[in-house]
Amino acid sequence: MKAIVKAKKGKGLEMHEVPIPSLQPDEVLIQVDVVSICGTDLHLDRWDGWAQARVKAIPQIIGHEFSGRVVEVGLGGKRFRPGDKVSADSHISCLVCGSCLRGMPHLCEDLVILGVDRDGCFAEYVVIPERSLWKNEASLPSDIASIQDPLGNAIYATGVEPVAGRQVVILGDGPVGLFSVAVARASGASKIMMTGLNPFCLEIGRTMGADRVYRADQMDIVDSIMDETAGSGADVVLEMSGAPKAISDGLKLVQKGGRFSAFGLPSKSITVDFSEDIIFKGIRLYGINGRKMFETWFEMAGMLNSGRLDPGPVLTHHLLFEDFAKGFQMMEANPRKAAKVVLYLNHALLDERGDNDE
Amino acid sequence: MKAIVKAKKGKGLEMHEVPIPSLQPDEVLIQVDVVSICGTDLHLDRWDGWAQARVKAIPQIIGHEFSGRVVEVGLGGKRFRPGDKVSADSHISCLVCGSCLRGMPHLCEDLVILGVDRDGCFAEYVVIPERSLWKNEASLPSDIASIQDPLGNAIYATGVEPVAGRQVVILGDGPVGLFSVAVARASGASKIMMTGLNPFCLEIGRTMGADRVYRADQMDIVDSIMDETAGSGADVVLEMSGAPKAISDGLKLVQKGGRFSAFGLPSKSITVDFSEDIIFKGIRLYGINGRKMFETWFEMAGMLNSGRLDPGPVLTHHLLFEDFAKGFQMMEANPRKAAKVVLYLNHALLDERGDNDE
Amino acid sequence: MKAIVKAKKGKGLEMHEVPIPSLQPDEVLIQVDVVSICGTDLHLDRWDGWAQARVKAIPQIIGHEFSGRVVEVGLGGKRFRPGDKVSADSHISCLVCGSCLRGMPHLCEDLVILGVDRDGCFAEYVVIPERSLWKNEASLPSDIASIQDPLGNAIYATGVEPVAGRQVVILGDGPVGLFSVAVARASGASKIMMTGLNPFCLEIGRTMGADRVYRADQMDIVDSIMDETAGSGADVVLEMSGAPKAISDGLKLVQKGGRFSAFGLPSKSITVDFSEDIIFKGIRLYGINGRKMFETWFEMAGMLNSGRLDPGPVLTHHLLFEDFAKGFQMMEANPRKAAKVVLYLNHALLDERGDNDE
Amino acid sequence: MKAIVKAKKGKGLEMHEVPIPSLQPDEVLIQVDVVSICGTDLHLDRWDGWAQARVKAIPQIIGHEFSGRVVEVGLGGKRFRPGDKVSADSHISCLVCGSCLRGMPHLCEDLVILGVDRDGCFAEYVVIPERSLWKNEASLPSDIASIQDPLGNAIYATGVEPVAGRQVVILGDGPVGLFSVAVARASGASKIMMTGLNPFCLEIGRTMGADRVYRADQMDIVDSIMDETAGSGADVVLEMSGAPKAISDGLKLVQKGGRFSAFGLPSKSITVDFSEDIIFKGIRLYGINGRKMFETWFEMAGMLNSGRLDPGPVLTHHLLFEDFAKGFQMMEANPRKAAKVVLYLNHALLDERGDNDE
Repeated sequence: MKAIVKAKKGKGLEMHEVPIPSLQPDEVLIQVDVVSICGTDLHLDRWDGWAQARVKAIPQIIGHEFSGRVVEVGLGGKRFRPGDKVSADSHISCLVCGSCLRGMPHLCEDLVILGVDRDGCFAEYVVIPERSLWKNEASLPSDIASIQDPLGNAIYATGVEPVAGRQVVILGDGPVGLFSVAVARASGASKIMMTGLNPFCLEIGRTMGADRVYRADQMDIVDSIMDETAGSGADVVLEMSGAPKAISDGLKLVQKGGRFSAFGLPSKSITVDFSEDIIFKGIRLYGINGRKMFETWFEMAGMLNSGRLDPGPVLTHHLLFEDFAKGFQMMEANPRKAAKVVLYLNHALLDERGDNDE
Repeated sequence: MKAIVKAKKGKGLEMHEVPIPSLQPDEVLIQVDVVSICGTDLHLDRWDGWAQARVKAIPQIIGHEFSGRVVEVGLGGKRFRPGDKVSADSHISCLVCGSCLRGMPHLCEDLVILGVDRDGCFAEYVVIPERSLWKNEASLPSDIASIQDPLGNAIYATGVEPVAGRQVVILGDGPVGLFSVAVARASGASKIMMTGLNPFCLEIGRTMGADRVYRADQMDIVDSIMDETAGSGADVVLEMSGAPKAISDGLKLVQKGGRFSAFGLPSKSITVDFSEDIIFKGIRLYGINGRKMFETWFEMAGMLNSGRLDPGPVLTHHLLFEDFAKGFQMMEANPRKAAKVVLYLNHALLDERGDNDE
Repeated sequence: MKAIVKAKKGKGLEMHEVPIPSLQPDEVLIQVDVVSICGTDLHLDRWDGWAQARVKAIPQIIGHEFSGRVVEVGLGGKRFRPGDKVSADSHISCLVCGSCLRGMPHLCEDLVILGVDRDGCFAEYVVIPERSLWKNEASLPSDIASIQDPLGNAIYATGVEPVAGRQVVILGDGPVGLFSVAVARASGASKIMMTGLNPFCLEIGRTMGADRVYRADQMDIVDSIMDETAGSGADVVLEMSGAPKAISDGLKLVQKGGRFSAFGLPSKSITVDFSEDIIFKGIRLYGINGRKMFETWFEMAGMLNSGRLDPGPVLTHHLLFEDFAKGFQMMEANPRKAAKVVLYLNHALLDERGDNDE
Repeated sequence: MKAIVKAKKGKGLEMHEVPIPSLQPDEVLIQVDVVSICGTDLHLDRWDGWAQARVKAIPQIIGHEFSGRVVEVGLGGKRFRPGDKVSADSHISCLVCGSCLRGMPHLCEDLVILGVDRDGCFAEYVVIPERSLWKNEASLPSDIASIQDPLGNAIYATGVEPVAGRQVVILGDGPVGLFSVAVARASGASKIMMTGLNPFCLEIGRTMGADRVYRADQMDIVDSIMDETAGSGADVVLEMSGAPKAISDGLKLVQKGGRFSAFGLPSKSITVDFSEDIIFKGIRLYGINGRKMFETWFEMAGMLNSGRLDPGPVLTHHLLFEDFAKGFQMMEANPRKAAKVVLYLNHALLDERGDNDE
């Protein structure tokens, strides 16, 4: 089968012919229809410090966001049958550590990430342990189905406490930030203020329901949003960028008694005014890693299948799987001209779209 | 001033000329623009058992739902100035009981209800303790402003836990049930199933976002909704009717690990299958009384002022204050032909509407 | 091996020689040291209506409370090794239903109960799926280890919200009620008021930390406890009896804004004053089924291994396994003269105790 | 009356004769029996940067921790009568800001702190707004009653989520850290690990229930506690020191899915590894400011009056009010030889103690 492979230590990715993977009793073999490119995949392409430190096995098939159809179910399989449409949570948990036994498999102490710690889904076929697999509604479009892993981040980060009737600041205009705009909007947030660096992405944010968008490189975000909130700050801050300045700004922007969800990962330690920004204001700060398995997925299915939530505008480019290099280039462009790029292994699905959004 | 008065023990209400009330230091005098009729007012009109047992002082001005403008502020006043547009929470709390000291004034042990335990707002002027008064956004229409007390019930009952992405059953098609449909819809509920007895009201529910409506007198509600939810029941049940059958049905309809908000008040004890419907399913049941003061009001302002929530379709009739008798008749009709009737003391506001929805 | 068996439809239990059970790949074979008798076992003995309706397979080995040592681990085993001391959660969940996928295996929609729906632990050996097995601290006495399943009910019911500094009413003097007294006491409850019918058990409750004990058959419980709480009722009510009167009393005894945990299972529908006791008071009511797997078990281990919690006084009788009939008789006596009876398959452990508490 | 006064800008405090304060209608005049010295008072004595920036009015009576008896109640008074034993929450809230209206007066946007922003309680008489006053149980010793403000910090920080059966790390051996040990112990924490710099204070911590105490200046706290928790870290971390190193250590010590309460105030911004310590671990971090008014006080009364909690060992020194300078010196000593110093205006109460703990 064809697969996008990290073939050697160093920059770059290659499309190779590799064997179809074999199946363990607790696993399911899936024919992949659509995959989408995540920031993690860009790290692996670039072979930056994080990638060098993290990736153990080379060569490895990359990718963790996909939708596909079940081809074969392992002997111990219970939940799936051939033909089922599926996606996966990229977190493959061990089931036996303290986190797993406490009902928090998304925080597994021995976490295996698809496409990082084991062969991923950028291939015609992928094998996934049943416990990380999710059955999609038959009617869910395959491109939307492929981005549920990051959409789930946004749903978990946004909904860890109610947002209905509350002012929400979303820092970061990457795909998860953009998804969060749509989730907050669908969940009744009263005013959504979004920050970012890319006019292209901020415009998508506006389309998805942001009431105000702010160029973080062109204005003082704290001043601007404090003005917009009559000096009080927002009830809810969602930090989706990982930029130290955004985290610091975000902590200034939560109002007293408010809530801060931290999702974006800074690459090193950052400086925080604990006294003024956290303690005196009596805020609640949640570290958000992954998605709840599968509470978040049930909520996501509810929002997607009912049409309450349409993450579609974030999927800016739909390419053939074979054109992956072009997709990676688009996502690396500065300033960005793509939000989320999806790649089609199933060419018929791309043909059905009937449009060309390159 | 003109006022609608419970003048004597017995059926009926009368419009009287009474003195403008005088002001205590912690109170505010308000000129009333619009009032709306609540089920409580119907009880007082009918002089039923509940009213006979509850009302101590006769004569008394009735009514607790209104919007108006501040005329005069008591000496101890801090939050309001003449001209401010205001509404009130009907719960006037003592501030000194255990509930109040625990931060739950809506559950005050010595609660005074406006228009029930003291003179109400169905009058040209009303006096309200500052602590129960809420400042309306200037742009909020006066009729919408007048129904915030019951709308707040719906917001509190619906949002006590998140509803985004979750299936919600709403039992009861009275105004608070209808408001709850709009609140659940604005808050991202994935599917809203509503039950009631009145085709007129259920049709409004559909307009406001109910995905399915059920005539409780024409079908087995439990069977129907179990079918609709593939046998699992709903994540969230909101009981807004007080009908014993609806409570019992609702408890059967919550799924395992789900949530039940109990708002509708049955007039006597009811029968509940504690083992099957509550314990084995491990549900959380919340008794909902009033609204949180003023957390709920802040959420409500966020939803109303942003336009996320439009309770307008529930306000089916707009009449002159002087035509109150007609309004009461409409709300007593069986089957109902009115949801919420609002009465205008400020005739200019009614003229501005420019329509006639009788 | 020896086993206590429900051999035929009808009253009574018998000790039989049966084969040692065989092992599936996801299961563990355990040599049982100590078992304890639960109310469920009494139902099975009596063959009452509940038992007749529930039990499908006869003959069946009964029992679900035990401690023992791992003998053999199935091929798929990950968490256990021969020699590990273990107990089990009696809830064996399917892992694939909606409840399981939502992280609530204790509310599994296809729940199998050990000793009710499949062969239980009143035998020399028992086979348990790994996912329901818990590793005991080596130092935990085997009798204490055997009662963790019901102790977990008490820990879950009591600790679903904090009890420190709060007044707690515990209704019911069966073993789970008594355990709850100890848990509430260890968790900082400020005053523990316990009700029951059995002087023998209430005396144990006093030993374990109840500040006040009430004979439910000799006084008006509501009046007495309202007096004791200066008319306000208690912050927390734990209903552990299942008696309709106790549930009804308990709902009257929760104070405004308080919390009610419902654990005891009434055998039929009961009458509840929803308006006065639940809605007007704005309480939170939790249905408690089983224990959280394994959050509750981690808390329980913390409390037991540190010595903060000593459930020992509830284990009133320690008998040889072969004397099970005597144990059942003791627990059926009226008035009760036993709280929890433990039976030793491992005679050496009973010898070590060196006392005779019959 | 005698009062301890910050008489001029600069180091030092003086005892002056000043007039008994006059009373507003919403205030209560109290004769002070006992006061206790807080770290805030030391800042005012030293006249450090914080004090210079914060204190506006000089001269000012300092102090915010006390117990006393009501002498006179303002005209608007409702909750108190002459002779009532009382203490106060040092937070005097405005009642009209967004925080107050949301039910969070402890986070008031216009907060006035007793003895910092207005005349305090280190005097024979003090005037307090009724809304910040708390009625003490008559039997509560006056010295214990005087330290409820900081004890409330410990109760709020510790109990924001349950601690029963959980491992708790407490960083900091000042009075609030020591109180937290007692609170965690009374609330059923399974293992309490405490860190600090002062052998004298750590020894008190051990007395109050710490299972392990660690000298932060003599060992690697993270290594030591990771060893003690078998490499997993603790369920709960309470940061009560404000030391940057302690905050950083504490964040490393929370286990996955655990909880961190931040109370100690660092004097400047600190460095935090957001990715590793907060986000990947999925923790919940609570900023703790003040105490909930008065939920925390009700819990505190429950724990104190029942004897579940004895903060007594923290009150290491009992002096005459006139010997305040000696008390301040004791608390400034390095290494510390005093935890909490209480000063008696009511000499008879000190005589009753019958001991001399200098």
